[in-house]
Amino acid sequence: LRTGFPEAIWGPGKTPEQIVAIFRTMSERVPVALATRIEPEVFQQLQVRLPELHYHPTARICVLQTADPPQYPGAIGILTAGTVDIPVAEEAAVTAELSGFEVQRLWDVGVAGIHRLLSHRTLLDRVDVAIVVAGMEGALPSVVAGMAACPVIAVPTSVGYGTSFGGIAPLLTMLNSCATGIGVMNVDNGFGAAMLAGKILRTAARLHACEGDTKRQRSQ
Amino acid sequence: LRTGFPEAIWGPGKTPEQIVAIFRTMSERVPVALATRIEPEVFQQLQVRLPELHYHPTARICVLQTADPPQYPGAIGILTAGTVDIPVAEEAAVTAELSGFEVQRLWDVGVAGIHRLLSHRTLLDRVDVAIVVAGMEGALPSVVAGMAACPVIAVPTSVGYGTSFGGIAPLLTMLNSCATGIGVMNVDNGFGAAMLAGKILRTAARLHACEGDTKRQRSQ
Amino acid sequence: LRTGFPEAIWGPGKTPEQIVAIFRTMSERVPVALATRIEPEVFQQLQVRLPELHYHPTARICVLQTADPPQYPGAIGILTAGTVDIPVAEEAAVTAELSGFEVQRLWDVGVAGIHRLLSHRTLLDRVDVAIVVAGMEGALPSVVAGMAACPVIAVPTSVGYGTSFGGIAPLLTMLNSCATGIGVMNVDNGFGAAMLAGKILRTAARLHACEGDTKRQRSQ
Amino acid sequence: LRTGFPEAIWGPGKTPEQIVAIFRTMSERVPVALATRIEPEVFQQLQVRLPELHYHPTARICVLQTADPPQYPGAIGILTAGTVDIPVAEEAAVTAELSGFEVQRLWDVGVAGIHRLLSHRTLLDRVDVAIVVAGMEGALPSVVAGMAACPVIAVPTSVGYGTSFGGIAPLLTMLNSCATGIGVMNVDNGFGAAMLAGKILRTAARLHACEGDTKRQRSQ
Amino acid sequence: LRTGFPEAIWGPGKTPEQIVAIFRTMSERVPVALATRIEPEVFQQLQVRLPELHYHPTARICVLQTADPPQYPGAIGILTAGTVDIPVAEEAAVTAELSGFEVQRLWDVGVAGIHRLLSHRTLLDRVDVAIVVAGMEGALPSVVAGMAACPVIAVPTSVGYGTSFGGIAPLLTMLNSCATGIGVMNVDNGFGAAMLAGKILRTAARLHACEGDTKRQRSQ
Amino acid sequence: LRTGFPEAIWGPGKTPEQIVAIFRTMSERVPVALATRIEPEVFQQLQVRLPELHYHPTARICVLQTADPPQYPGAIGILTAGTVDIPVAEEAAVTAELSGFEVQRLWDVGVAGIHRLLSHRTLLDRVDVAIVVAGMEGALPSVVAGMAACPVIAVPTSVGYGTSFGGIAPLLTMLNSCATGIGVMNVDNGFGAAMLAGKILRTAARLHACEGDTKRQRSQ
Amino acid sequence: LRTGFPEAIWGPGKTPEQIVAIFRTMSERVPVALATRIEPEVFQQLQVRLPELHYHPTARICVLQTADPPQYPGAIGILTAGTVDIPVAEEAAVTAELSGFEVQRLWDVGVAGIHRLLSHRTLLDRVDVAIVVAGMEGALPSVVAGMAACPVIAVPTSVGYGTSFGGIAPLLTMLNSCATGIGVMNVDNGFGAAMLAGKILRTAARLHACEGDTKRQRSQ
Amino acid sequence: LRTGFPEAIWGPGKTPEQIVAIFRTMSERVPVALATRIEPEVFQQLQVRLPELHYHPTARICVLQTADPPQYPGAIGILTAGTVDIPVAEEAAVTAELSGFEVQRLWDVGVAGIHRLLSHRTLLDRVDVAIVVAGMEGALPSVVAGMAACPVIAVPTSVGYGTSFGGIAPLLTMLNSCATGIGVMNVDNGFGAAMLAGKILRTAARLHACEGDTKRQRSQ
Ligand SMILES: Nc1ncnc2c1ncn2[C@@H]1O[C@H](COP(=O)(O)O)[C@@H](O)[C@H]1O
Ligand SMILES: Nc1ncnc2c1ncn2[C@@H]1O[C@H](COP(=O)(O)O)[C@@H](O)[C@H]1O
Ligand SMILES: Nc1ncnc2c1ncn2[C@@H]1O[C@H](COP(=O)(O)O)[C@@H](O)[C@H]1O
Ligand SMILES: Nc1ncnc2c1ncn2[C@@H]1O[C@H](COP(=O)(O)O)[C@@H](O)[C@H]1O
Ligand SMILES: [Mg+2]
Ligand SMILES: [Mg+2]
Ligand SMILES: [Mg+2]
Ligand SMILES: [Mg+2]
Ligand SMILES: [Mg+2]
Ligand SMILES: [Mg+2]
Ligand SMILES: [Mg+2]
Ligand SMILES: [Mg+2]
Repeated sequence: LRTGFPEAIWGPGKTPEQIVAIFRTMSERVPVALATRIEPEVFQQLQVRLPELHYHPTARICVLQTADPPQYPGAIGILTAGTVDIPVAEEAAVTAELSGFEVQRLWDVGVAGIHRLLSHRTLLDRVDVAIVVAGMEGALPSVVAGMAACPVIAVPTSVGYGTSFGGIAPLLTMLNSCATGIGVMNVDNGFGAAMLAGKILRTAARLHACEGDTKRQRSQ
Repeated sequence: LRTGFPEAIWGPGKTPEQIVAIFRTMSERVPVALATRIEPEVFQQLQVRLPELHYHPTARICVLQTADPPQYPGAIGILTAGTVDIPVAEEAAVTAELSGFEVQRLWDVGVAGIHRLLSHRTLLDRVDVAIVVAGMEGALPSVVAGMAACPVIAVPTSVGYGTSFGGIAPLLTMLNSCATGIGVMNVDNGFGAAMLAGKILRTAARLHACEGDTKRQRSQ
Repeated sequence: LRTGFPEAIWGPGKTPEQIVAIFRTMSERVPVALATRIEPEVFQQLQVRLPELHYHPTARICVLQTADPPQYPGAIGILTAGTVDIPVAEEAAVTAELSGFEVQRLWDVGVAGIHRLLSHRTLLDRVDVAIVVAGMEGALPSVVAGMAACPVIAVPTSVGYGTSFGGIAPLLTMLNSCATGIGVMNVDNGFGAAMLAGKILRTAARLHACEGDTKRQRSQ
Repeated sequence: LRTGFPEAIWGPGKTPEQIVAIFRTMSERVPVALATRIEPEVFQQLQVRLPELHYHPTARICVLQTADPPQYPGAIGILTAGTVDIPVAEEAAVTAELSGFEVQRLWDVGVAGIHRLLSHRTLLDRVDVAIVVAGMEGALPSVVAGMAACPVIAVPTSVGYGTSFGGIAPLLTMLNSCATGIGVMNVDNGFGAAMLAGKILRTAARLHACEGDTKRQRSQ
Repeated sequence: LRTGFPEAIWGPGKTPEQIVAIFRTMSERVPVALATRIEPEVFQQLQVRLPELHYHPTARICVLQTADPPQYPGAIGILTAGTVDIPVAEEAAVTAELSGFEVQRLWDVGVAGIHRLLSHRTLLDRVDVAIVVAGMEGALPSVVAGMAACPVIAVPTSVGYGTSFGGIAPLLTMLNSCATGIGVMNVDNGFGAAMLAGKILRTAARLHACEGDTKRQRSQ
Repeated sequence: LRTGFPEAIWGPGKTPEQIVAIFRTMSERVPVALATRIEPEVFQQLQVRLPELHYHPTARICVLQTADPPQYPGAIGILTAGTVDIPVAEEAAVTAELSGFEVQRLWDVGVAGIHRLLSHRTLLDRVDVAIVVAGMEGALPSVVAGMAACPVIAVPTSVGYGTSFGGIAPLLTMLNSCATGIGVMNVDNGFGAAMLAGKILRTAARLHACEGDTKRQRSQ
Repeated sequence: LRTGFPEAIWGPGKTPEQIVAIFRTMSERVPVALATRIEPEVFQQLQVRLPELHYHPTARICVLQTADPPQYPGAIGILTAGTVDIPVAEEAAVTAELSGFEVQRLWDVGVAGIHRLLSHRTLLDRVDVAIVVAGMEGALPSVVAGMAACPVIAVPTSVGYGTSFGGIAPLLTMLNSCATGIGVMNVDNGFGAAMLAGKILRTAARLHACEGDTKRQRSQ
Repeated sequence: LRTGFPEAIWGPGKTPEQIVAIFRTMSERVPVALATRIEPEVFQQLQVRLPELHYHPTARICVLQTADPPQYPGAIGILTAGTVDIPVAEEAAVTAELSGFEVQRLWDVGVAGIHRLLSHRTLLDRVDVAIVVAGMEGALPSVVAGMAACPVIAVPTSVGYGTSFGGIAPLLTMLNSCATGIGVMNVDNGFGAAMLAGKILRTAARLHACEGDTKRQRSQ
């Protein structure tokens, strides 16, 4: 178990049989295996073969958990601009929780109604990494990165129409942000955002363990 | 004088001789004629031939004014996200003032430092139209349109690098805004924004004149 | 009721249960609530749960109206280039009427048969804002803005094939118009066009109320 | 002389020596040879070596004419939307005249001031092919093709800024025109437009010669 | 009957009832009315209501013909690069025939097997206009325009995969052709190509009628 | 000093006078102020006015340092694919060092010669964050993120030609990486990468200070 | 049989009847005929009419083989970055085998886990041409071309999401590779890659036959 | 000397000092070192420091040759569509010759005058690999690959204007070719084309050496 993270199957384009087979192989190796982008109909077919599978419908994630994952210090804040961005945000949230991190959710705080975000400032002060999920114009990460001291991971979503070009408009907004300290993900990549947030918190743990501890966790 | 606005010359690609000739023709017809996108070197060549020309260096506008333009009711707020957006904003401001409107300027209130904008809320309550000029990620119009009751005219600027694509990134942000009531202009088109703001305030004046007055100004 | 406009639900991606729940919450707050982009099948499912819902099939708008909305001065002209652009235009028209404005419709006056438009000049003189809806080459707003004194809101539609790129071709036409006084919307955004037109007419009312009245409506 | 047209040199990227050498070779073969996209400085260098060269400065065309070209029946109307489109239109006009056709010029009749075009209707009735040159939004060919019975050749120009993308915006407008009977050229290709107009008029001559004459000109 | 061409209905997005109604109105005015882009299922629904409708399945065109159209001099050659391009070519061919012109078809003569095209040279010498239909790399019009004296109308098709971008690759090939005398149409626009070919042949007829005849057909 | 980072001036588009004035204001507030994208000629003009300015020529950064910045735990590895990517990497390196972090440089380890990278594995094990700078095909971050446990910040550069589109090709490579744990920056944004790396290391310090310490550094 | 390769039918857009008819014609001419992009349902319809057809389900290729194809010297290595790239790789592999070449398959050796590729170095030393198939970021061909002495044919796949743009991201990666000796194919074009590999090995055979043999195979 | 090819320096963005230093290092290792994209002015500066440098002005290549390179069997045909494509073709030709291969040049055989190419068929029969260089519409590789039995390497050039997009139009043409057996290079990449051709001919030599020889050259 090199990275300490759950292993993941990218669901699209795989048959239920293939997914089940990969789950079986993985579960011999890691305590938590998951498959992403699993539609409800696919889950039903998987469950017949693998009854211990658990399904997170909004996140569209299936989990095969044979032991509790280790818990790590650090809290990940996950924010969305709109309600339609929630599935991508939940993909991030479920992945982060299965990776052993505390998650703080804050939905529907888009910039067109800036007061909702401002009224939740304390959440931004409390978390150690922020994942900001936004479609349409994708402006929320800029405002969050201007307010928060922690690193911001920006995830554009394919929510939108016309010139949103399936997520390209918010992607460009995020890449061009005037605020510093934002790392950008591919469109709808909630899973990847959680993996990066996890790497950030675990490198932090390793770094500070090194300083005070005798046992170095680096090659864990 | 059909629209009541100053007539304008688009400077790029015209020789000084051509610009002077058009100014002379226009000034017989209208009290205020202007030329946009005039670099300082070009102005110097124009001034030799037409000493009464006045130059606004930041706006890069030359004016030939033979009489005071009529003044109209209504205030136009002009905001920029950054300082590099000021030339485009000044093109709008000078055009609006020469068209007879009051202008309220507010520079450098971009979303990465949202408190500066919030501290100027009253300006947004006081103006009748807002022109919002932003490059880079171009998120400012969304926040302004969420806060202001008046119509918002959004002007993307070509300020930026890499994936800003010379103003396309902020243009897409503005077109995809979650906030309603935003009309978008072409990149760097401060002049056009002022013309639209002017049409909005003049249609307002005509409409309400009709209701209370006997003399209808509509076909003025 | 801060802006005086009906509140609106963006239909796509929401279940009938979610839409009904939002309608119920909204109707406690505002006299007119509406949902856009509702297909007939969805309306049938909504109506079972909320029998007082009214449906505008061409505009694809559902309305829950608990009181008459206030009426405002000012007329909005809505024009289309072709008949296929009518659904987007009706989305604008129904939104504008539900917002309390008079609407003048003029369908199928595209530039390839310029005489039809010329024969309806008086409509352009009579309205206070014009919403111009066009797909394919999207040239109609340029011609209208050259003829009308009022502000023009241009809405590109996704009608077209090949190089129309789902509305990008008419969008570019509108952004690059030689005529001044045009604010451009995202592709197919008839709703947003009506909201901007409404903001224009209401800011006009506030501005002129201020001048003659003692009671200021600005923060209404 | 297979096609009956003057032969042409594409100037950019060739040294004056190379251009002169090609002119010398061509002039042994055809009565009219021309080079396009020749800047004034280049012409001066060419003239030193080839004093009989004639220069059309607006069209940026150099001509080496050793005999009068044959004259053909048919008139080509050439229209521009703006004054900045004139160089491209002149490239077409000079090429057409050197190919032996009558040219009717009509400059600055863009759609934002539709009355100027309408006041020149008779020109459209009089010509046999129309070449319509427009930058910015490029809407003029649609209006012309709706009014004229003759074929229309549309030439987008690189005139514009921001989202005109160096002529792509008017190109898309022309390709997506609702009016039928328009053939579109590459950006700024005035030369090609004249060559196509010439082929149209010459095929017409051959076709009708065949019907009434004994001598077939087809393989001329 | 201003242009002498059949009137046409663009089928997509119209209900069978709407198409039938427009056919009925048109057929009072013109001898030949047609609808394009009609799938077989739609034709079956139309035929129930309008039994005299005739269907061209490959061209996907429905025709309502109440009299024979006038026949005009001139032959239109229509070529395709591949067999998959035939539906677009047939749309052009049927439109041209219904407009009263002779059509010469030549299918599957793409540039990757240049000898097939070379073996049909005489067809290119015999026709008065050539319509060249090609998808994939779209190179055929360049070769044809280099071989033929007549004008060439190039129609890119959406046939292809990956980087053909639904017809953009062949469109660019055609616009950038080194051969002169090519007018380009929008992707898959076989109908428009036939209309332009018809305008070319009819302007030819008018032009030469003028020279020899007393009766001028120009404003027919 | 809210974030603990040096304050920075974006150089392009500012006059030497403006830059000097901002430096003077900043230096009253922070111990380290810097300006990025400063060409040597500009530095010479700045130095005349502000002799204590220090210049990093490869990074094109000017620094005004009035005190030593605080030093923080954690090492930042900075890698480039090629030697032409070094200026962007140095912009990151100098910014990181001025922010108080240890920097490990590794230049010219692109994927076309994978053994050079493999021979430097231990550097990847030793650093706490990796900034990977690559132009052309931009594949290096994928390989690094597959080998390293720490978070990876990927910076595409505008180095390349033809289809690299000024950095868009490597940007897309980085966004589409199969490796997880990569946050992507705008093209050439070495400064922003260092700022994000700094935020990661400082959030780590805060987080672990909280656990073992009584004094919370969070709002430092 | 000019090229010595099997003849191929591009399946999409053809009816089963058409495919069967082409197979019948081809099989009179060549020992091996194949059809690509054949879905299982289509194969079932084909098999009813042509029972001797053989189907490769992963490659989606149907074969009609009336004799054994000649075998040629040379081995083609085919590699994929992921498992989802296998169908495109199998299209190449089956085509190559039917063309008479030895194929070495190596699946799932993407750059995010570079050790898997490194552990298969000997395969790269053993083959004479390498076909490298990759989607997502498409970085594998760069690494392979840096390691292998033989020519590399790179095939981008449409596997990916968001900014992979259906294969454009890996295509750009491949075109911009720092490694030399890579020829790039259109997206998903496994068939074409095999044909190019075959031409490379057959030209090799002809070249070396010429040197040592008396009988020249060149016009075979 | 792993690959047997000359080593190469990419000139742009390097100072004369840097280029000279790399030349000195290389020349200790290989008999032939070259630098590409060297403008005449740069060569003059290099020659001062390194008098034994040789310059190929059309190819813009500098060579430092300390011994004769080995000669290899096989001829490379290099064709251009136009004369403006020659610099890119010469970059390929000089690189190929310095790599030890025979080169056959054929300039200016573009598809708009197909007979010139047809009259040189025997060259295509004589060469073992063909490099085809074309800008504008880039159609030449399709025709060549249809005529030649050998592999074709297609190089798009940035020659063109308007919608050629600096070489993207011919690149797309080449990727979408109906002819099989074409490997495509990045825009203007003549050097890379020669390197791929060299790898093809050397892999051929190794393959056939293996069959008849005892000494295996594979790891040479
Ligand atoms: N939702 C997701 N978004 C992006 N990457 C994912 C996602 N789910 C899984 N992956 C990645 O895909 C890889 C598995 O791909 P595969 O081997 O095709 O199942 C995992 O290692 C993850 O890094
Ligand atoms: N800065 C500007 N931005 C956009 N349009 C402008 C600008 N300045 C002038 N124009 C428009 O350009 C027209 C004049 O163009 P021209 O006749 O070429 O000088 C005016 O009618 C204006 O509508
Ligand atoms: N202004 C122009 N626009 C487009 N094509 C041109 C132009 N001038 C010349 N050409 C074409 O370029 C060809 C000459 O190219 P070249 O042999 O490079 O001089 C001629 O045959 C013309 O078809
Ligand atoms: N999978 C494939 N990918 C790309 N080209 C193909 C494929 N299969 C067949 N072809 C090409 O398509 C041509 C046949 O097209 P068609 O005549 O329409 O069946 C063949 O000559 C092949 O060159
Ligand atoms: Mg958003
Ligand atoms: Mg901004
Ligand atoms: Mg339209
Ligand atoms: Mg125009
Ligand atoms: Mg083709
Ligand atoms: Mg790289
Ligand atoms: Mg890959
Ligand atoms: Mg070419």
